[in-house]
Amino acid sequence: MLKPPIDFYFDFSSPYAYIASEWIGAVAARHGRTVNWRAILLGATFQVTGLKPPVEFPLKRDYLLRDVARSAAYAGVPLRMPEVFPIPTQNAARVFWWLHAQDTQRAVAWARTGLRAYFARGINLSDPAALKALCEESGLDAEAAEAAWNAPEWKAKLKSVNEAAIATGVFGAPFFVIDGEPFWGNDRQAQIEAWLASGPPRGIA
Amino acid sequence: MLKPPIDFYFDFSSPYAYIASEWIGAVAARHGRTVNWRAILLGATFQVTGLKPPVEFPLKRDYLLRDVARSAAYAGVPLRMPEVFPIPTQNAARVFWWLHAQDTQRAVAWARTGLRAYFARGINLSDPAALKALCEESGLDAEAAEAAWNAPEWKAKLKSVNEAAIATGVFGAPFFVIDGEPFWGNDRQAQIEAWLASGPPRGIA
Repeated sequence: MLKPPIDFYFDFSSPYAYIASEWIGAVAARHGRTVNWRAILLGATFQVTGLKPPVEFPLKRDYLLRDVARSAAYAGVPLRMPEVFPIPTQNAARVFWWLHAQDTQRAVAWARTGLRAYFARGINLSDPAALKALCEESGLDAEAAEAAWNAPEWKAKLKSVNEAAIATGVFGAPFFVIDGEPFWGNDRQAQIEAWLASGPPRGIA
Repeated sequence: MLKPPIDFYFDFSSPYAYIASEWIGAVAARHGRTVNWRAILLGATFQVTGLKPPVEFPLKRDYLLRDVARSAAYAGVPLRMPEVFPIPTQNAARVFWWLHAQDTQRAVAWARTGLRAYFARGINLSDPAALKALCEESGLDAEAAEAAWNAPEWKAKLKSVNEAAIATGVFGAPFFVIDGEPFWGNDRQAQIEAWLASGPPRGIA
């Protein structure tokens, strides 16, 4: 029997989602699962939930930047916090959904390219020229990509994906849903592995 | 050479701090460390930092209650979310500091008793009668404990501990400081173990 896929929600501007994007595929594969990658906009979920980006609180910001660096180092993932952070990522996300409609594997490749470009190479995905150059480097038609991120169709698609995510209970990134069970955060990796290996822990229905 | 102790900040109303309180002693001992237990009031840190308790956000609250149950189950810690949650915990915290001035080990025993009473037995620590009964059960002089939680001396002590915690960068619980490095959350256990075993990961000064 085919096991259900893992839903993996990410925002191109979330460093913890970047770290998780580097391990989720291998973890899923080890347990015979596939991954549904879902680009979302955290800004939209924050608005609906009344939450604020954690980096808006100075004390928390200082800690998080330290924790991000440490978490990436422990995970063996190259990370250099971008000078401009956070950034609006709707264009990169719309390119993701535009590709997704053609070929989900190309969309996943784009997600990984975009996250690495921003968090390991310092490429500002909110700069249209930089984003077009990245599209070209990735073998995409940069003009078509730009047309896609400006098109009502892909704006509407991203909006509906966001609304569905919020309806599912997503309020941050990375966010995973496995067999209906929600997991929030790169730091839930160990619980995700345990769940995939053995299902719910004793005492949890 | 004696290794520096681990500072462990907790609030009697934090379920994640309760889970961490069940493993921090053994983890520290395995690595030749002791633990400085520090009772704080999260409410005070929230006020200063502008943060809000996560359970004030409905979407996050639903997730957190699920995650708390799952995290306790994976950690093998008995937990039953109390009917009244969260609660003000200044009285329990003042008893902690009153005992701490006499004998730190008795204060630690009280911390563990109080956390277990609230999160495993459903005893409401904000109810003076219940708190006095718990003091008695624990072999403390309940009248003296009540006098302590009403005394200006222990009110001032808790306030100054809170202010020092905030000055150190503490904005949540459980919060750990090890060799000057801050770790926030029960979910940082693996990083704490790695740090205690081998120090900073490569690339982190």
